[in-house]
Amino acid sequence: MMKLVQGGVTAPIGYFATGIACGLKKDNQLDLSIVCSEDMAVAAGVFTQNTVKGHSLQLTMKNIKNGYANALVINSGNANACNGSEGYEDACEIAETVAQMMDLEPEDILVGSTGVIGKPLDMDKIRPGLDELISNMNPEGGHEAALAIMTTDTFAKEISLQTQINGKTVTIGGMAKGSGMIHPNMATLIGVITTDANISKSVLQKVLSSCTEKTFNRTSVDGDTSVCDMVISLANGMAENEKIDENSKAYDEFYQAYLHVCTELAKMIAKDGEGATKLIEVRVNGAKSSEDAKKAAFAIAKSPLVKTAMFGQDANWGRIITALGYSGADFDPNKTDIHIGDLLVCKSGEAVAFDETHALEILKSDEILLSVKLNEGKFGDRVWTCDFSFDYVKINASYRS
Amino acid sequence: MMKLVQGGVTAPIGYFATGIACGLKKDNQLDLSIVCSEDMAVAAGVFTQNTVKGHSLQLTMKNIKNGYANALVINSGNANACNGSEGYEDACEIAETVAQMMDLEPEDILVGSTGVIGKPLDMDKIRPGLDELISNMNPEGGHEAALAIMTTDTFAKEISLQTQINGKTVTIGGMAKGSGMIHPNMATLIGVITTDANISKSVLQKVLSSCTEKTFNRTSVDGDTSVCDMVISLANGMAENEKIDENSKAYDEFYQAYLHVCTELAKMIAKDGEGATKLIEVRVNGAKSSEDAKKAAFAIAKSPLVKTAMFGQDANWGRIITALGYSGADFDPNKTDIHIGDLLVCKSGEAVAFDETHALEILKSDEILLSVKLNEGKFGDRVWTCDFSFDYVKINASYRS
Repeated sequence: MMKLVQGGVTAPIGYFATGIACGLKKDNQLDLSIVCSEDMAVAAGVFTQNTVKGHSLQLTMKNIKNGYANALVINSGNANACNGSEGYEDACEIAETVAQMMDLEPEDILVGSTGVIGKPLDMDKIRPGLDELISNMNPEGGHEAALAIMTTDTFAKEISLQTQINGKTVTIGGMAKGSGMIHPNMATLIGVITTDANISKSVLQKVLSSCTEKTFNRTSVDGDTSVCDMVISLANGMAENEKIDENSKAYDEFYQAYLHVCTELAKMIAKDGEGATKLIEVRVNGAKSSEDAKKAAFAIAKSPLVKTAMFGQDANWGRIITALGYSGADFDPNKTDIHIGDLLVCKSGEAVAFDETHALEILKSDEILLSVKLNEGKFGDRVWTCDFSFDYVKINASYRS
Repeated sequence: MMKLVQGGVTAPIGYFATGIACGLKKDNQLDLSIVCSEDMAVAAGVFTQNTVKGHSLQLTMKNIKNGYANALVINSGNANACNGSEGYEDACEIAETVAQMMDLEPEDILVGSTGVIGKPLDMDKIRPGLDELISNMNPEGGHEAALAIMTTDTFAKEISLQTQINGKTVTIGGMAKGSGMIHPNMATLIGVITTDANISKSVLQKVLSSCTEKTFNRTSVDGDTSVCDMVISLANGMAENEKIDENSKAYDEFYQAYLHVCTELAKMIAKDGEGATKLIEVRVNGAKSSEDAKKAAFAIAKSPLVKTAMFGQDANWGRIITALGYSGADFDPNKTDIHIGDLLVCKSGEAVAFDETHALEILKSDEILLSVKLNEGKFGDRVWTCDFSFDYVKINASYRS
């Protein structure tokens, strides 16, 4: 039994957070955040697979190795990537400063950065900002933290819920930032998932990795992938449940709740893709292999022609079958059926006469389902994406200015 | 010694062509074309690698197998794909009708179609159109033919040149349509290259395939790939040169001239990408392998974030190194140098302070060179693309209407 609750990353017991404006962004927008656990927490992470890796992310990959962390500091407005040795030193200074102020070890502080690449962090703004962060963090600060990690996001992405595990209430809270550069096979974003569950670091890592594969790694906004993306999860055990074993009913219950948190965050990320006006879910069924299903779903979800047609509310399914054709999936086009919403538009690879008025009704919605049956086998996959609008171009044509 | 001449596909000796409006497109726009050789020509072709293949293209793949053809009929405004058995029958009827009118064999007529998928050809418009085509074709009709194959192209793409081969003047003419759905590893477009050279079908096929790999397969507009793409080449031998052997000086001369025709057409296609305001050439050097160089160049050329930055005249090179990082190429980012035009913006993977005014001057140009040195090995590649503008979205949001 899952129950949605308020609070985001501070919903679980023993977490403090906040977000402040230290001046990295214009107009006094929040740009520096902290999430901190009262007790030492076990920590798990998934990280970008981009060959280029941001300096803050590199420090976090190092500090998380021992499997424990106390706090995570994230700045937005500047990616801290490609800044030479200075970039890594800046990340270290943030960890050391926070550790010193809170009487913790620097290796238990994780650091994240998101924004423009190749611009050194303005440490003269961040240093006093860290002071303010630590003074202001509080057990209801989840929302401010979620606001402070946003870049071109138009709304804060957070969710928190409770589930019962062996008679104890366990809470999971999550926040994420997404918008541009969202793409599979990466951590795809910056995400933070906190819980008061009592769970080992290896089991937490297993849950995070599995849920990431099914959710964050099934979103695509523009096919680009960032150098700073990561999802970090902390679990401080303060719910005092019996430790969650890998093969147990408790594990299944925790997993389902955790998956729900990741699913909702992933859908919010796709829905808030840069310039997006619609959330698009692409479902492929009947593939010969899971790899074929994944290739087919991603080819459709990534196609700029499909995405512009969705923006234009145009039931141009020819672009869907075209994307299938170059996806690399093994299938016979003469067996393919395509639905837009509940409307059959292509049967056995051939055009079906359909009611354009009905099609328009479906395409006017802000959530659209594109489903493909390959009728070749029993494998399926599902990917979330968004439409491609004028505003995507507008946002990205002048991102640095 | 190459010399540019007028005439497009009718520049070589013995070719007739024209384009007419039969009503497939609105507003009396040209939508039906023919290119015809006086003598039987040897014929070569490259075809889309999309699993889904248009019906007209399938007929052409069959008819070209014997290596000879007399004429090629192409309609725009309708792709003739995913129309079931009727689609193939329509393509056959076009070939049979033209053959009958000209007293030729149907298997020597090639057919091409480009436009919307899943809409049957309107044969009631095409039948009288074919009559008009044959009556009107003439030895100066290359330009009309080039106009009649356009879809969202904003200008006709044609070029013709002459070269001397063993003391004879050989002429090569080409036309192409591109614009959307342009992408590598496909024929990527509809292209027609005519020549009066005396050359065997196997040598012509070799020249076409090799030049396609270096030119048409090095363009990317939006990463989508069409089901109707092909490049067809005809050679009628009427220049009366000694037959071109594979390993000869004559071959090299013919190859260079042919490559120039393909290069110029490919650049026109990239420059006229849907909504494009700029031609972007991406050069990668110093890769460990040719495969690495190709992956790196295409990742940059396909990145919507790089392409929107170019539209916005924003020297955001972080997006270039990000694309390199997820390209799959094997390289150390700490060795990477990046130039925008002649301006060094990233040295050994680190930001270089540069003059933003100078950057803006470079980025204002309608042709931009992005060059990357990986400093890992000796392999290079080059890809042409365009920027990503508001108009790309506008054109593709309502293509069917």
